[in-house]
Amino acid sequence: MRPVAIVGAGKTPFGTLPDQDLRSLAVAAGEKALRNAHVEPAAVDSFYLGNFAGPEFTAQNHLAPYISTALGMAGIPSTRFEAACASSGAAFFQAFMGVASGIYDMVMVVGVEKMTCQPTPRVTEILAGAGDCATEVKAGSTFPSLFAMIARRHMHDFGTTRRHLSAVAVKNHENGALNPDAQMRKVITLDQAMNARPIAEPLNLYDCSLISDGAAAVVLCAADRAHEFSERPVKVLGVAQASDWVALDRKPDITTFAAVRGAARKAYEMAGLGPGDIHFAELHDCFTIAEIVALEDLGFVARGRGGFFSAEGCTRRDGPMPINASGGLKSKGHPVGATGVAQICDLVQQIRCEAGDRQLKRHSVGLAQNLGGSGATCVVTILGGR
Amino acid sequence: MRPVAIVGAGKTPFGTLPDQDLRSLAVAAGEKALRNAHVEPAAVDSFYLGNFAGPEFTAQNHLAPYISTALGMAGIPSTRFEAACASSGAAFFQAFMGVASGIYDMVMVVGVEKMTCQPTPRVTEILAGAGDCATEVKAGSTFPSLFAMIARRHMHDFGTTRRHLSAVAVKNHENGALNPDAQMRKVITLDQAMNARPIAEPLNLYDCSLISDGAAAVVLCAADRAHEFSERPVKVLGVAQASDWVALDRKPDITTFAAVRGAARKAYEMAGLGPGDIHFAELHDCFTIAEIVALEDLGFVARGRGGFFSAEGCTRRDGPMPINASGGLKSKGHPVGATGVAQICDLVQQIRCEAGDRQLKRHSVGLAQNLGGSGATCVVTILGGR
Repeated sequence: MRPVAIVGAGKTPFGTLPDQDLRSLAVAAGEKALRNAHVEPAAVDSFYLGNFAGPEFTAQNHLAPYISTALGMAGIPSTRFEAACASSGAAFFQAFMGVASGIYDMVMVVGVEKMTCQPTPRVTEILAGAGDCATEVKAGSTFPSLFAMIARRHMHDFGTTRRHLSAVAVKNHENGALNPDAQMRKVITLDQAMNARPIAEPLNLYDCSLISDGAAAVVLCAADRAHEFSERPVKVLGVAQASDWVALDRKPDITTFAAVRGAARKAYEMAGLGPGDIHFAELHDCFTIAEIVALEDLGFVARGRGGFFSAEGCTRRDGPMPINASGGLKSKGHPVGATGVAQICDLVQQIRCEAGDRQLKRHSVGLAQNLGGSGATCVVTILGGR
Repeated sequence: MRPVAIVGAGKTPFGTLPDQDLRSLAVAAGEKALRNAHVEPAAVDSFYLGNFAGPEFTAQNHLAPYISTALGMAGIPSTRFEAACASSGAAFFQAFMGVASGIYDMVMVVGVEKMTCQPTPRVTEILAGAGDCATEVKAGSTFPSLFAMIARRHMHDFGTTRRHLSAVAVKNHENGALNPDAQMRKVITLDQAMNARPIAEPLNLYDCSLISDGAAAVVLCAADRAHEFSERPVKVLGVAQASDWVALDRKPDITTFAAVRGAARKAYEMAGLGPGDIHFAELHDCFTIAEIVALEDLGFVARGRGGFFSAEGCTRRDGPMPINASGGLKSKGHPVGATGVAQICDLVQQIRCEAGDRQLKRHSVGLAQNLGGSGATCVVTILGGR
């Protein structure tokens, strides 16, 4: 395998965007990434689309050629990758292999989701399709309730508190308030976060990520040619995907995800790095408890200590391990199929020192963790600027 | 790239299968392929699922880990690939690259669709999502009507007749009647085929493929290790995927598909073969006219001659270019996400001389053409037994 670099990245703002449809969002992000890479559409060898539930949200299916042709790329292989909320992480993983193996010289990955064209109950129902419909969903589970069970168990086993969860929300809102592309640029107090209306106890409104429209895109090429396209290419140091049972009840322990540990182990191994070498990370905080569990599964803190670590301020921008400096899914927004590539764009922005008010001091090695369902898919990506 | 071989293949029967759900179908095919390859689930490095619209047909999404875990493969990368009716062709294409590049030693590809749990009008609506919803679908087009326009234009430009279309149907039904796994094992007369009730004129009932449940699976490994697993491994000589606009009205000529010509050109080039070297083929006869157009786009006959060639009996099992000896989508059935891998299983069966009453005399080099939408995606695969 040869080294691979990101030479272009582009995102749309995330939010409720009534004037944009699924394709216009994807095309906007794709065109930004192409411009950022100084690459013409004709130079792209293969197109990778991450999208979770476009057909259910918008009726349109067969989405990869639908978008790649509009980007001026008719002819090349164009495929959609689905792995729930890790769909564009999965697309990125496959795209990386396409270049690393030498099959392709230049590829594009786009992640997109258009969620706000459906009423909220229908969105919740569509998202529940990433759970096991025959068992947990049939029994009434939605994703807030699944992660509520995870939170409850984490509290029971490790002494994690309501305040720990809220500390994650307060920090991510503080970061997102500085991100011009974030959906909810709103600082919240700990008191607000702790006393918001319940969604699925112990989770309340501020523990849950948002329903969003948005897209993100990157252009990848062989690292030895990256300087032809970008003054600041970003190297893919490691990337791995792992899987586990979809149903939460099939997991022997619901406070740790085998798919996250598995993907992290392989990504660290590929990068020749460990958790201590990572300067900052974008974690999949679909719910506040998910960020806490990810901190532990990625080895940033000991098992059970994620809540305490967060409440002590260690994951703030000025802390020893800044997490979700972008605002995370919580404040930046969570257009599910876009999230994996959006996290990678956020890493690129930090590594290139382009993060403005959110710029971190230590920003050379970043990690993104993209989760699908309640831990059935995970993609871990490690990028570096050196 | 290193040579790749198929060491295991397995299919479920196709049909209306009320006792089987999406996962049990996929697992049944997957287990057959594993047994056929004498491979344990633990030996599989990565799982590739082709599925078009499982979430819309069955509500279940996040389908790749949902199925791979049930096959005993928890942990490995498990991703769903969507490219309309070419979804499992696209999954096979990516899986091939995974092994050819040396990243994986052994991978599994499964294609599946469970369509009969929805009423027919809803199936037609879901399938229409593979067209352009904002233009052609909004204007009332369904796939029968899109292919009816293609047929009408082909008749106008080249003198193709109603009888030519029916000759394709009669031949595919004759073949399918000999296939124990086919959905509709029913010989039909030319008279029946020509006078069936209209669906979208000039297409009638017998010009249209079926609504089906079914799954198909293959196991791929590096060719130099194939004999460890199979006495009769089948080599992947060439495989390519190409794309084009989703909307039919964006194509300058609707009687030929650029994606098919593009994928064929690359697959022939990879195999070092031309159309004259192919002994037999499985073509994507979602409608009879599609088989005729594919004959031309793949170079088996000159432009405009596909109908005449078919009516002359040249594509029958005893003809110079046997097409769809399996019965094709027309008679075997068309569980859309399964079709691409099912075609590959049909090639494997012929190449291994396991096709029973349908066994062809010349069967060493076979080609499969898997089409998505009205020509927006095409995957062409060439297999050989020598």
